[in-house]
Amino acid sequence: MTAVLDSLQQGRKTILPAMRAALDRLDPISRSTAHYHLGWTDLDGNPTEGGGKAVRPALALLSAEAAGAEAEVGLPGAVAVELVHNFSLLHDDLMDGDTERRHRPTVWTVRGAASAILTGDAMLSLAQEILLDGDAPCSFAAARLLADATNELIRGQVLDVSFEQRNDVGLDECLDMAAGKTGALLSASTAIGAVLAGAPQPVIEALAGFGADLGLAFQLVDDVLGIWGETAVTGKPVFSDLHARKKSLPVTYAITHGGALGRELADWLARPDTPGEESVRHAAGLIEQAGGRKWALDEAYRRMADGRHKLEAVGVPERPREELLSLAEFIVTREA
Amino acid sequence: MTAVLDSLQQGRKTILPAMRAALDRLDPISRSTAHYHLGWTDLDGNPTEGGGKAVRPALALLSAEAAGAEAEVGLPGAVAVELVHNFSLLHDDLMDGDTERRHRPTVWTVRGAASAILTGDAMLSLAQEILLDGDAPCSFAAARLLADATNELIRGQVLDVSFEQRNDVGLDECLDMAAGKTGALLSASTAIGAVLAGAPQPVIEALAGFGADLGLAFQLVDDVLGIWGETAVTGKPVFSDLHARKKSLPVTYAITHGGALGRELADWLARPDTPGEESVRHAAGLIEQAGGRKWALDEAYRRMADGRHKLEAVGVPERPREELLSLAEFIVTREA
Repeated sequence: MTAVLDSLQQGRKTILPAMRAALDRLDPISRSTAHYHLGWTDLDGNPTEGGGKAVRPALALLSAEAAGAEAEVGLPGAVAVELVHNFSLLHDDLMDGDTERRHRPTVWTVRGAASAILTGDAMLSLAQEILLDGDAPCSFAAARLLADATNELIRGQVLDVSFEQRNDVGLDECLDMAAGKTGALLSASTAIGAVLAGAPQPVIEALAGFGADLGLAFQLVDDVLGIWGETAVTGKPVFSDLHARKKSLPVTYAITHGGALGRELADWLARPDTPGEESVRHAAGLIEQAGGRKWALDEAYRRMADGRHKLEAVGVPERPREELLSLAEFIVTREA
Repeated sequence: MTAVLDSLQQGRKTILPAMRAALDRLDPISRSTAHYHLGWTDLDGNPTEGGGKAVRPALALLSAEAAGAEAEVGLPGAVAVELVHNFSLLHDDLMDGDTERRHRPTVWTVRGAASAILTGDAMLSLAQEILLDGDAPCSFAAARLLADATNELIRGQVLDVSFEQRNDVGLDECLDMAAGKTGALLSASTAIGAVLAGAPQPVIEALAGFGADLGLAFQLVDDVLGIWGETAVTGKPVFSDLHARKKSLPVTYAITHGGALGRELADWLARPDTPGEESVRHAAGLIEQAGGRKWALDEAYRRMADGRHKLEAVGVPERPREELLSLAEFIVTREA
C-alpha cells in the first residue's frame, strides 16, 4: 500500500506542473474556478492543501511505461484524462444537485450554475487541445481515443439519469451504464500512455481492456460500499444508497435474479416515500439474501482477475504491470 | 439574394445526411433531444418542417471550394462546426434562462436542465470525433482548429456572463468578448474547409480572418438591431436590449466615447429598476447622439471591407469568393 501511495505521490509531482500549465491557457475566470474545484485554492484564490488523488493521471503515466516508454511520454494524456474527469464532475455535481465534493462546497453552489457549466465545457475542450498540440501521429490517435471515451462517459451519464425514471432496468443495461460512466475514462487512462508511446495495437487493447475491467470492479465495490460500507470508510451514512432508493448493481442483480425476494425488493424500491431506518435495514437484508452482495463482490474479483490476465497475455513488463495492478487494487478498495 | 438562398438550400441538402449520420452515433436519448433542438422533430419525435439556416456548414463547404477543392471535402468540418454551434446554443439557452428558440420551447424548459447540459456535452464531443475519424494530416489540423475555436467561444461566453456584473467594461474588452463569442466559430467555419483541403497557410489565415471580420460585423449589426430594429424584422420588441439594460457594443462605445452624454447613459444603465417606454426611448436617443449607432454601423462596414480585401489578397477564385461574400452579407443583415 505504501508503494501505491508513493507512486500516486510521484505521479502527482509529475502531473501538477503540466496541469497548471494547461489551465494557464484558460481565461482567468475559468482558471480560478478550475483551481478551486481541483482543491488547489480556496474561494479567494489562496493556495490550499489537498486536491484529488489524481489516479487517472497516474494510470496514464504507468500506461506509457507498460509500453516500454518513459512515463513522461504519457504526460499529455495524463493531463487530458484528468481534465475530462473534472469536466464530468463539474457537470454531474450540478445535475445531481450534490453540494459537497472533497469536503468543500461544489462549484455550482458557490459560483452558480453557469460557472459550473462553462468551467466544465472549458476543461473538456482544453483536454482535446492539449493532445492536439502534439504533432506525432500518436497524438492524433490519443485524441481519437479520448473523444470516444468522452462520448461513452456522456452516454453512461445519460443512461444513469434516465434510469432514475424507470423501474424495469435490466442487469445488462445497468452494467452497460457503469461501463460508460465509470469504465470508459478509466479504460482511456490505462491505454492513452501506450497510445502516445506508439505501442502495438494488441498491447493498447489489453491495457484498455484492463482499464474497463478496473472500472467495472470499482463500480461494483463502490455500490456494495454504498449499502454496507462503514461510515468511517465511506464518509457517508450506512445504507446511504438505500435511503435514496438507488438502483445500483447489487440491487439490480437481486431484483432480476432473486425470485420472490427480488420481487419484494422491486416493490420496496418503487415506493415514493423516504424510507425509515428499519425499512432500509430490511431492504439491505433482502438484497443480501437474494445474492446481490455476493454476486457484486465475486464479479468485481472476476473482473480484476480478467484484467490481470490481459496484461500478462501481452507481456507487459513486470514493474509497470505490478504497479498498475497495485494501483487498480487501491482504486477498487479505497476510492470513495 | 435568391442566389444566397439557393446556396444555403444546396448546403443544407449536402449537410443534412451527414449531420443525421453523425447524430446516429449518439445514444437514443441524446439523439432524440438533438433532433428536437435542431427543429427536425417535435417533442414526440414526429418529423417537422424547419430547422436552422445552417449558415456555418454552408461557409465550411464554400471554404473548401475557396481552396480549390470540391465542397464535399469540407463536409466533416461543416458537420463539426454545426455541432459545436448547437452545443453552445443548448448551454447558453439554459444559462441565460431563454425559453424560446426557433419559435419553440428551448430544450431545458421541456426536457430539464440535465438534458440540455448532457446533449450539449454530447454534441461537443461528437464534433471532435467526426473530425478525428478522418486519417489525413489535414483532419488533425482541422480538429486542432476546432478545439481552439471552441475554447475561444467558451472564453467569450465566460466574459459575457462576467460583464453582467460589471459597470466598467471598456470597448476593447467588449470587442474581445464578441470576437470570442461570435467571431471564433464563424472564423473556424470559413477556414475549416480549406484546412481539410490542405490549403497553404496564407489562404487558411485569410479565410479565418475573413470569418473573424464577419463575426464582428454580424455582432455590431445585431446589437444595432437589438436597439433600433423593427419588430417585423427582429421578432423582438423595439429597444428590446435597452429594456434589459444590456451593455452591447453601441452602448459601450457611447459610454466610453460620448463625453457627458456617455456619463448620463452610464448612470442610466446602472439603475436597478425595469425602465419604462419613455425612459428607454431617451436612452436610445443618448446612444445615437453620442455616436454609438453610427460607429457600430461604420465599424461593421469596415470589417466587411477588410474581410473582402483579405480574400482578394490571397487570390481566392471568384465564384467561391463572391458566394462567401454574399453569404456573409446575408448573415450580417438577416440573421436575427
